[in-house]
Amino acid sequence: MGWGDLGAFGEPSKETPNLDQMAAEGMLLLDFYTANPLCSPSRAALLTGRLPVRNGFYTTNAHARNAYTPQDIVGGIQDSELLLPELLKKAGYISKIIGKWHLGHRPQFHPLKHGFDEWFGSPNCHFGPFDNRALPNIPVYRDWEMIGRYYEDFKIDLKTGEANLTQIYLQEALDFISKQQASQQPFFLYWAIDATHAPVYASKQFLGTSQRGLYGDAVREIDDSVGKILSHLRKLGISENTFVFFTSDNGAALISAPKQGGSNGPFLCGKQTTFEGGMREPAIAWWPGHIPAGGVSHQLGNVMDLFTTSLSLAGLQAPSDREIDGIDLLPAVLQGKLIDRPVFYYRGNEMMAVRVGLYKAHYWTWSNSWEEYGKGIDFCPGQNVSGVTTHTQEEHTTLPLLFHLGRDPGEKYPLRFASDEYETVMERISIVVQQHKATLVPGEPQLNVCDRAVMNWSPPGCEKLGKCLKPPESDPKKCFWPH
Amino acid sequence: MGWGDLGAFGEPSKETPNLDQMAAEGMLLLDFYTANPLCSPSRAALLTGRLPVRNGFYTTNAHARNAYTPQDIVGGIQDSELLLPELLKKAGYISKIIGKWHLGHRPQFHPLKHGFDEWFGSPNCHFGPFDNRALPNIPVYRDWEMIGRYYEDFKIDLKTGEANLTQIYLQEALDFISKQQASQQPFFLYWAIDATHAPVYASKQFLGTSQRGLYGDAVREIDDSVGKILSHLRKLGISENTFVFFTSDNGAALISAPKQGGSNGPFLCGKQTTFEGGMREPAIAWWPGHIPAGGVSHQLGNVMDLFTTSLSLAGLQAPSDREIDGIDLLPAVLQGKLIDRPVFYYRGNEMMAVRVGLYKAHYWTWSNSWEEYGKGIDFCPGQNVSGVTTHTQEEHTTLPLLFHLGRDPGEKYPLRFASDEYETVMERISIVVQQHKATLVPGEPQLNVCDRAVMNWSPPGCEKLGKCLKPPESDPKKCFWPH
Repeated sequence: MGWGDLGAFGEPSKETPNLDQMAAEGMLLLDFYTANPLCSPSRAALLTGRLPVRNGFYTTNAHARNAYTPQDIVGGIQDSELLLPELLKKAGYISKIIGKWHLGHRPQFHPLKHGFDEWFGSPNCHFGPFDNRALPNIPVYRDWEMIGRYYEDFKIDLKTGEANLTQIYLQEALDFISKQQASQQPFFLYWAIDATHAPVYASKQFLGTSQRGLYGDAVREIDDSVGKILSHLRKLGISENTFVFFTSDNGAALISAPKQGGSNGPFLCGKQTTFEGGMREPAIAWWPGHIPAGGVSHQLGNVMDLFTTSLSLAGLQAPSDREIDGIDLLPAVLQGKLIDRPVFYYRGNEMMAVRVGLYKAHYWTWSNSWEEYGKGIDFCPGQNVSGVTTHTQEEHTTLPLLFHLGRDPGEKYPLRFASDEYETVMERISIVVQQHKATLVPGEPQLNVCDRAVMNWSPPGCEKLGKCLKPPESDPKKCFWPH
Repeated sequence: MGWGDLGAFGEPSKETPNLDQMAAEGMLLLDFYTANPLCSPSRAALLTGRLPVRNGFYTTNAHARNAYTPQDIVGGIQDSELLLPELLKKAGYISKIIGKWHLGHRPQFHPLKHGFDEWFGSPNCHFGPFDNRALPNIPVYRDWEMIGRYYEDFKIDLKTGEANLTQIYLQEALDFISKQQASQQPFFLYWAIDATHAPVYASKQFLGTSQRGLYGDAVREIDDSVGKILSHLRKLGISENTFVFFTSDNGAALISAPKQGGSNGPFLCGKQTTFEGGMREPAIAWWPGHIPAGGVSHQLGNVMDLFTTSLSLAGLQAPSDREIDGIDLLPAVLQGKLIDRPVFYYRGNEMMAVRVGLYKAHYWTWSNSWEEYGKGIDFCPGQNVSGVTTHTQEEHTTLPLLFHLGRDPGEKYPLRFASDEYETVMERISIVVQQHKATLVPGEPQLNVCDRAVMNWSPPGCEKLGKCLKPPESDPKKCFWPH
């Protein structure tokens, strides 16, 4: 989902009354970012509070490439990483993940081995394969074991776009919340539904209800679900004890537009890029009685902050034995304070850009290669900013392209190199970048090796269902990451 | 000002708390249009309820050209046109225009000859000339006579961007409202401030207060002024008797970006074009106790509707002796009804596009000429939709380019000509266009002839001020309209 997909963020059909209401009762964060323009690294960052380049969710197979966890990935989240649910245990929290895990699907990466107490969902994205003979369909787990597979037991009709997955995930969420409330146990729910990822789907009751087509139907179903979750918290009398945060793991995938792609509002490009459209996200914080209703914050935020903020809410400290990139957002959301901190935009292990205050400096620019672009893969459809949305990797490390995101949110007008403003600002930014690079210790890259043998052929539980498939011989290779 | 310039419409710095509050108390109209992508024709349409091609505010000097009323224009609003304030007189209304008139500056076009009872403001835009010897600066009138000129008596500092014009216009508005309330007389106030037109200015107290630079400062001053006007109505106890509508006369002038240009949100291109960015406008209706608070409407609306709606509010009928394009919006804003009606997008006397429901068909596409574009004049900076944002006038009258504005608000993905959807929709649209063209009687074009002799050399009142200038010999010529 993109920054521009919610009514409160200016989507022209304004079809998200529940999320807009959530914002009216809570706080809109307009300058909130994800840690990566792609799903897996963002989610790893959220749960570890650390940049993907530190927690290992990146590749070094080629320069500045986005990578994630397809079925044939060998790597995943390392035991040495401390995940939010592991830490929350110390404060007595029960944690559940509903939906997409995406931090590795091999046994050692299972979410219940990394602090979660419960899981309902899938280890990988719901897109292909769609055939259970040649390649395994993605399994859906309940806790330790698979209970079926997408397209087989969990239907997604690619022709009509119908699937009731979001409804199933919603019901799981409501049940979990009820159970925790009944047992008086504090809980952490990571509601990581995989809508609105392509192939886009929605339940029958939402199909055809949006001005925006199928993608809009999916957004409406999410909006409705969020409304139901918030109502449920209220009904159970725990809304004032529950901090809720809504955001997305990357910008809208414009490549799937117009039928399956969302909106990044006035921002440049989308998913896969380190322009604002790829990484600035819709974000709403909600906590009645604590967060002032109708608030708006320009705090530079990041999904990694949800790690640190959640620990803070639980009365815990963030780990001190490692670098943590997330900051505690509570002073920003509760008292309206503004904390000065940079935002880093990475592609692989390359720092492409950095934001400091209202300025953003691009050290590298790239949308995608001419070769991919020639095949019709366009991350910036209808947009073309000369020298900015480049199809070759352009290095600007000695003279970064500098933008003022207040005057120019669309990153169309680089500041003149010869201007005083450029010089003053770059002096400040250079120090931030130098400090960042000087202390950076990259983790072992987890997204370099792929092997068809590790795919979800025979996940635990497959025997009971008669759904075990025979894996091929192991044949590890370097994964190919084109973007 | 553009669709994307208000916080309520998704401007990322969200610096318009008063307008956002106006929307929260009233109704947001998300599908509201102006009648032309340029100022004078839009304003003529607003006050006559008729398309510029009917009321004469267009040119036939070249094909599909935007035209307005610079100082050397010979034409203006014709006596045969009935203006809103003329008609409101029948219901006892006193009408005042504050700000830019722009319907012709020669004596016969004076607003007090066309129904207004009071005027404070200028006949033309405040941009150049800036020298009172070679060419006259634009006069500022109080009622029948000029009381000074821009840059001479009404300072605009082009270096710092400081000018207190919006404050002066605000004070005029508050005073007029107080006076009418005291005399218990119904009033029509046309608050036609010329901010945020380039050269952009703001009062000292707003300079440097916006994240968005000088343009944002001007927006903030307008926002603040609207807040003060609404508070004033409340304080006087007449808010429930006063219908207030906020909108703009064309999309943001992206050509003035980033320093002096605004935002059209997710829409394509800007001022001067018939893409959404040129003609879809921010719009808020406010009438406490009548318009439901927090409402959102997808009614296709147009500035011409303000003519018919205002007459309706005053208990009057629109004239029946001529074609009126405006409709009464009251069923939409008071009862949430949706009235089926088309929106026409004109450039000169050419119907470039039409919107019916969520579909928009382009019969002609053009941003501007290669020649102008080569000079750096770009109405779509950073945007380039192949075959759509064309630099030659492209005719599509036999096979219009069709867009679904719900799925594709940015006009990036024309529907396939061979699709069923295209065929079905175009059948419907063709009927609408045929009906429109069959009944269209163009008015006498007013924007064809220019003559330096008619400039504001010696406006009424100049003698008292010693500000009369000697006009040159009359030398009427065809005006040159490049876009």
